[in-house]
Amino acid sequence: MSEHPPFAVAVDLAIFTIRDGALSVLLVERGAEPFAGQWALPGGFVEPDEDAEQAAWRELREETGLDPSARFSGHLEQLRTYSAPDRDPRMRVVSVAHVALAPDLPEPQAGTDAADARWWVVDDLLSSVDDAPDLAFDHRQILLDARERVRAKLEYTTLATEFVAEPFTLPELRRVYTAVWGTPPDLGNFRRKVLGTEGFVVPTDAHGSPTGAGGRRALLYRRGSATVVSPPMVRG
Amino acid sequence: MSEHPPFAVAVDLAIFTIRDGALSVLLVERGAEPFAGQWALPGGFVEPDEDAEQAAWRELREETGLDPSARFSGHLEQLRTYSAPDRDPRMRVVSVAHVALAPDLPEPQAGTDAADARWWVVDDLLSSVDDAPDLAFDHRQILLDARERVRAKLEYTTLATEFVAEPFTLPELRRVYTAVWGTPPDLGNFRRKVLGTEGFVVPTDAHGSPTGAGGRRALLYRRGSATVVSPPMVRG
Repeated sequence: MSEHPPFAVAVDLAIFTIRDGALSVLLVERGAEPFAGQWALPGGFVEPDEDAEQAAWRELREETGLDPSARFSGHLEQLRTYSAPDRDPRMRVVSVAHVALAPDLPEPQAGTDAADARWWVVDDLLSSVDDAPDLAFDHRQILLDARERVRAKLEYTTLATEFVAEPFTLPELRRVYTAVWGTPPDLGNFRRKVLGTEGFVVPTDAHGSPTGAGGRRALLYRRGSATVVSPPMVRG
Repeated sequence: MSEHPPFAVAVDLAIFTIRDGALSVLLVERGAEPFAGQWALPGGFVEPDEDAEQAAWRELREETGLDPSARFSGHLEQLRTYSAPDRDPRMRVVSVAHVALAPDLPEPQAGTDAADARWWVVDDLLSSVDDAPDLAFDHRQILLDARERVRAKLEYTTLATEFVAEPFTLPELRRVYTAVWGTPPDLGNFRRKVLGTEGFVVPTDAHGSPTGAGGRRALLYRRGSATVVSPPMVRG
């Protein structure tokens, strides 16, 4: 047994956004074996002169056309490293998975070894509806872990405010949480946290359009300068 | 350039406990190059038939004599993966760092390529007091990140109660936070969280020894069944 058993090191990316009110993730259709023709998270091998994060950005750009100038540049973070001995049929490959949740991401353009690239509704992938594809490798597990990470992130950060156009109403902001958490936040707790955290949102003196039967017009807000919600929101 | 550039994959472990009231970390003195004679986190290369967590347990046992039957078996978790191209002078080595904080860990016994193994006070290592060693590789950075992880863990879990013998007083429990956070938690917030979180602690009908000039005897508590503090404690 070699002192340094040879491995390949890969990166995979779970890039989330909200599209049509649903949490969505960017997948590529693999153009090469193994798992050719199956859908997978974008990713690939780390090159000799780059670290894992640099490899993640490069692979994302090559396979999907999304690049670091997109609005999620500050949001990419490591999720965890997946290292089961049999996770890749070719050889030992450990993958350093990354995750980001960012608004307004563009339609992808498939490139290099990706035959296709598109946004998928996460719930459709994970609830195994009839026409949902099986994901390649252990990417279903990575996607589950990544979704949990971004769900938790909305508890203790003000990231959700980036998903609404200013000025916005509290019901509009609450719909961001509903999309990511899969369930609406408790109304009282939500209002208390958003309005009670200094700098979460800033009220304007204007009101939105009348909504609902009563015709009440919700107050409009802008984003504040706070980034952290402490103590966090309570999910579910 | 090879399609799968060869890497070695290593693991490193930041194992923390509290000794004599101070947050302490387990280090080994390296017996082999590179960095022979320098202190480092325990760790080593992942073998072909094991995943990163299995490698972490094996290396810990081999280099320090601590084993999974120790009380921290449920506490080990991945921290992050370190992958800078120049982090190891031999070749490309990425390290999957792990972290645990657990009570009552034994004195280590150095083994295999560790020339020595001992507990160090974390503050002494990170504040660069005169006789504190430089750590090998990027282990100072890993140690900084690992300390931040365990500090955060005391905000949202009841892990601190494992560091006091039952029955215990609230001042005894508060000293656990002081050791890990490096600063005492605000007294009012601390009492409110501990007594207001169902199942954090359970009061007994007994009191501890008189303390301080006033001679008040603090109420004694046992551990409750809760594991999560929601919303979390506020640190510092």
